Amino acid sequence: MEMWRDLAPIGRNNDTRGYRRYAWTAADADCRAWFKAQAETRGLAYEQDRNGNQWAWLGDPRTGGAVVTGSHLDSVPDGGAFDGPLGVVSAFAALDELRRRGAEFTRPLAITNFGDEEGARFGLACVGSRLTAGHLTREQAYALTDADGITLPRAMERAGYDPEAIGPDPERLARVGAFVELHVEQGRALDLSGDAVGIASAIWPHGRWRFDFRGEANHAGTTRLADRRDPMLPYAQTVLAAREEARLAGAVATFGKIAVEPNGVNAIPSLVRGWLDSRAADQDALDRTVTAIEKAAREYAEAHGIDVSLTRESFTPVVDFDHALRDEMARILGTGNELKVPVLGTGAGHDAGILASSVPTAMLFVRNPTGVSHSPAESAAEDDCLAGVVALADVLEGLACT
Amino acid sequence: MEMWRDLAPIGRNNDTRGYRRYAWTAADADCRAWFKAQAETRGLAYEQDRNGNQWAWLGDPRTGGAVVTGSHLDSVPDGGAFDGPLGVVSAFAALDELRRRGAEFTRPLAITNFGDEEGARFGLACVGSRLTAGHLTREQAYALTDADGITLPRAMERAGYDPEAIGPDPERLARVGAFVELHVEQGRALDLSGDAVGIASAIWPHGRWRFDFRGEANHAGTTRLADRRDPMLPYAQTVLAAREEARLAGAVATFGKIAVEPNGVNAIPSLVRGWLDSRAADQDALDRTVTAIEKAAREYAEAHGIDVSLTRESFTPVVDFDHALRDEMARILGTGNELKVPVLGTGAGHDAGILASSVPTAMLFVRNPTGVSHSPAESAAEDDCLAGVVALADVLEGLACT
Repeated sequence: MEMWRDLAPIGRNNDTRGYRRYAWTAADADCRAWFKAQAETRGLAYEQDRNGNQWAWLGDPRTGGAVVTGSHLDSVPDGGAFDGPLGVVSAFAALDELRRRGAEFTRPLAITNFGDEEGARFGLACVGSRLTAGHLTREQAYALTDADGITLPRAMERAGYDPEAIGPDPERLARVGAFVELHVEQGRALDLSGDAVGIASAIWPHGRWRFDFRGEANHAGTTRLADRRDPMLPYAQTVLAAREEARLAGAVATFGKIAVEPNGVNAIPSLVRGWLDSRAADQDALDRTVTAIEKAAREYAEAHGIDVSLTRESFTPVVDFDHALRDEMARILGTGNELKVPVLGTGAGHDAGILASSVPTAMLFVRNPTGVSHSPAESAAEDDCLAGVVALADVLEGLACT
Repeated sequence: MEMWRDLAPIGRNNDTRGYRRYAWTAADADCRAWFKAQAETRGLAYEQDRNGNQWAWLGDPRTGGAVVTGSHLDSVPDGGAFDGPLGVVSAFAALDELRRRGAEFTRPLAITNFGDEEGARFGLACVGSRLTAGHLTREQAYALTDADGITLPRAMERAGYDPEAIGPDPERLARVGAFVELHVEQGRALDLSGDAVGIASAIWPHGRWRFDFRGEANHAGTTRLADRRDPMLPYAQTVLAAREEARLAGAVATFGKIAVEPNGVNAIPSLVRGWLDSRAADQDALDRTVTAIEKAAREYAEAHGIDVSLTRESFTPVVDFDHALRDEMARILGTGNELKVPVLGTGAGHDAGILASSVPTAMLFVRNPTGVSHSPAESAAEDDCLAGVVALADVLEGLACT
């Protein structure tokens, strides 16, 4: 499609074939220009809100009860083509489909691109929706800094935006009657069930914990094994324990980030810092998983004469999407037959998860045949993407045209 | 002692209390100025060789058959006070002791400070002695670069030295009849045997191997455990296998350095790169250890669907110190009684190990009560240091005054 053709080259790295669309960079500006052009091509009223989120309006926003759909255009480092953009492209395509059907809108409709969803640059995800929903204060946002020491307000300024304006936006949210985000699935549930499209039930509770294993720096060549206090050993044991405990609890647990001091080939480390990301379908399973990993880490550390400390760096409780909206969508999608459009939970955070505290919110997932995401290898079949557009058009028609 | 008082503050970090004396920095220049002052105070002829190593001569170098002693003044990041400086301070102190004794020298004597022994800045150890012995070519040295992208020749220039001159120095080495390096022990062998001073038998063969575990980057929240190809898992298993295989072989093995991609909290890594440092008393034990670790890594990787590749980044065969010189030193130190001045191997590399290929070389070790080195906690008792000075003076007298 034409929309993809224009969007596909933006921020793509020629070596990895992955996307590097980080907030307030040149690639981000190109994505934003693309969004504005799509809005204008369709005669939609374009605006950017105080937090840099983009909106394209059909109908008068002041009427209230708007049906809003969209996602984000930014990416993780070397991300795939679909995580984010599929929801925005599908939103414009669904509007085109509804116009082909001759649908008559009884409520205002808006398409959105929320800024800085992935948090690749400033380390915090969903900055645009968090600010709007009042989950992130202006002071907290001003303190965000990228790897080069550039603060978020400075980055916004450099991109030509006014950081003075950022903050909660309750008036805008009060105009929204429902928010529906379409997203490529980031797992294989739909592939395994054989469905092209699914409805989200909930976002799993999830958190990040930092494990600091502190031992004693020493010479790797001359220190007897018996005299060592090597924090790499209990770290390694904890990595393996995390996998096993997650398996037992039906959760997921990952050590994907590590920092070692002094990180020298010939030095026993003084510090191994590992970050645990863990998520589960319910709070109880998550608690059991993390408690068991912590217990294992403490036992392993003690056995090696290592100090270990745990810090919970972030935590997001379960987000249960609006039940009435979810049921309405299932009805619209003609089911009752839950196997046809299954309802599934997800371990990933989304702008929809942030907005769910302020407005009735729902999500549609499109099948991901490999389950791979946050990677250049992320994929979705064209037929499934088209099925997603039809499903989204059906939902928007059901919500905004009756 | 006065010598320590002047040397102790140079390059010391106030927070860690560790030393940061890196090649061709201001701290290094201060150490070099200290050395020159010590030489001049004693009326020794000071010179710096083409590779930036410092020499202080008593008698005419051209006579040949010189007895040379010394070590290095640079440090690892946050190193201790003794690793290196103890050998240089003890050399000057031993000369003072011999002058008190009224010793008459029949051979020239020199005290040395070899440059850049630790390799903290440019990543390669013993640069000064390697260049002099012809183990490092000028081209290789010119390619060395620090973390800020400054090349070794540029760093030398900035420090006021001429990098054009660097290269092998066989004429200088031909004047050396024996090289004896005194060094604080970097293990606990002397502490365990109850001796203040020991003689080195050999430097263990040692090497560095890089393990690249390549998996598949994916979302840490949404990827089912069964669908993951997480390279952190076989890395962790290999860390634990390395410890066990080293224990079985009487060797040492350490994973002290790691690099992870993309190293994000919510990303399953695509790459975990771990560096193994392994050493053993003999080649056979080292081979068995590394072969077993490699085998384990390949099995673990295969079980997780991970590719693993191994690269030997460096290897140094066993250095067996000159037997005649070692026996002569044992005789001089009045022993025959090997328990009094034990002969021990070491897992650490030294300038003496480099020079051993060119001249008869030996080492003396001074007891380290904790075995800790490459750390601010490195220590040596004053009595043991004084015993080291007396032992070194005895050896120099025996070699240079008869």
